[in-house]
Amino acid sequence: MKQRLLKQMEFIKEADRLKTIYRQTLVSDGSKRENDAEHSWHLALMAMLLQEHAAEPVDLLRVIKMVLIHDLVEIDAGDTFCYDQSANADKEEREHKAAQRLFAMLPEDQGREMWELWQEFEDRETAEALFAAALDRLQPMLNNAATGGGTWTRHDIASSQVRKRGEPIVQASASLGEYFESLLEQAMAEGILRSDENSKGEAK
Amino acid sequence: MKQRLLKQMEFIKEADRLKTIYRQTLVSDGSKRENDAEHSWHLALMAMLLQEHAAEPVDLLRVIKMVLIHDLVEIDAGDTFCYDQSANADKEEREHKAAQRLFAMLPEDQGREMWELWQEFEDRETAEALFAAALDRLQPMLNNAATGGGTWTRHDIASSQVRKRGEPIVQASASLGEYFESLLEQAMAEGILRSDENSKGEAK
Repeated sequence: MKQRLLKQMEFIKEADRLKTIYRQTLVSDGSKRENDAEHSWHLALMAMLLQEHAAEPVDLLRVIKMVLIHDLVEIDAGDTFCYDQSANADKEEREHKAAQRLFAMLPEDQGREMWELWQEFEDRETAEALFAAALDRLQPMLNNAATGGGTWTRHDIASSQVRKRGEPIVQASASLGEYFESLLEQAMAEGILRSDENSKGEAK
Repeated sequence: MKQRLLKQMEFIKEADRLKTIYRQTLVSDGSKRENDAEHSWHLALMAMLLQEHAAEPVDLLRVIKMVLIHDLVEIDAGDTFCYDQSANADKEEREHKAAQRLFAMLPEDQGREMWELWQEFEDRETAEALFAAALDRLQPMLNNAATGGGTWTRHDIASSQVRKRGEPIVQASASLGEYFESLLEQAMAEGILRSDENSKGEAK
């Protein structure tokens, strides 16, 4: 058996663990917390269907590859809740170590491709990375809206924080940005996202 | 807001339900049954990494699109266990109805693309569909091997049935076929897959 294939298969087996890395977001029927594999699949499907809304033309295959692999580092580093400032302080270091271990399992050329895709996603500079980031921000908001506020209400997040979190959506696509804004307004009207005027204290 | 985007978003929200369609297979740490969204993500990652092993050159984007959407019909039709003959009798009809309802939610051109991708996957005639089918057969076998036999032991499946189920792997890729054969032999040596000589009765 070729060594190359065995390395690929070991990585594929290791990647199965992404199915047990839980995020703060619930799936839309509220029955359970979403995991990174489900989230990544959903982003890839969104990329397929929403490509035409990107402000700049994007290479769809590259966007899909990026969203499929963008959370693999969380197999070691765990999911870091986006509104948790202290956990985010050492996120980069933890994820960097994870990338080193995981991508080294692959044949060198493929490990390098994974590393480059992941870095590109993190850097948010190319049209593909900007679009991928927009999808990554939009998807959990759909699920929060579907589950009575989800992480917004559970962690007392204010609309200004969500609006800031959604900036990459507005940046990557005018129409998705407009959709995002209407989603926020509806959530506030429904009382599942508090406006800053109703703040219970300092925004976390 | 453009009607087109609203249709796309309604479909994307509906697709979330794939995360609650459970398969017979366990995830590789044995902690839970795998769902269709996790399975589809895993196949897309496998396509990225194993493309070079396809017997015929394949369009990677098309393979990935196909595996991302191949199980969406199970949102309505449910997962049909591959070794359950009676449930498989009306599978085609149930899935056809599901495809009609789901894909009609999308703008017409995208609904048609989904339908064509799904039909192509089901028909297993193009190089892309043959490769996608091989991944779809191989992935649960990795998880069965990782979980002490998984569905093989739970449903008393014999090696001849698994070998038949794996025919698309051998057909689509010599090296993946060889890997599959070694996986079967190891599973039999470990006693987590029974050879037909040890049959407890008629194969189901």
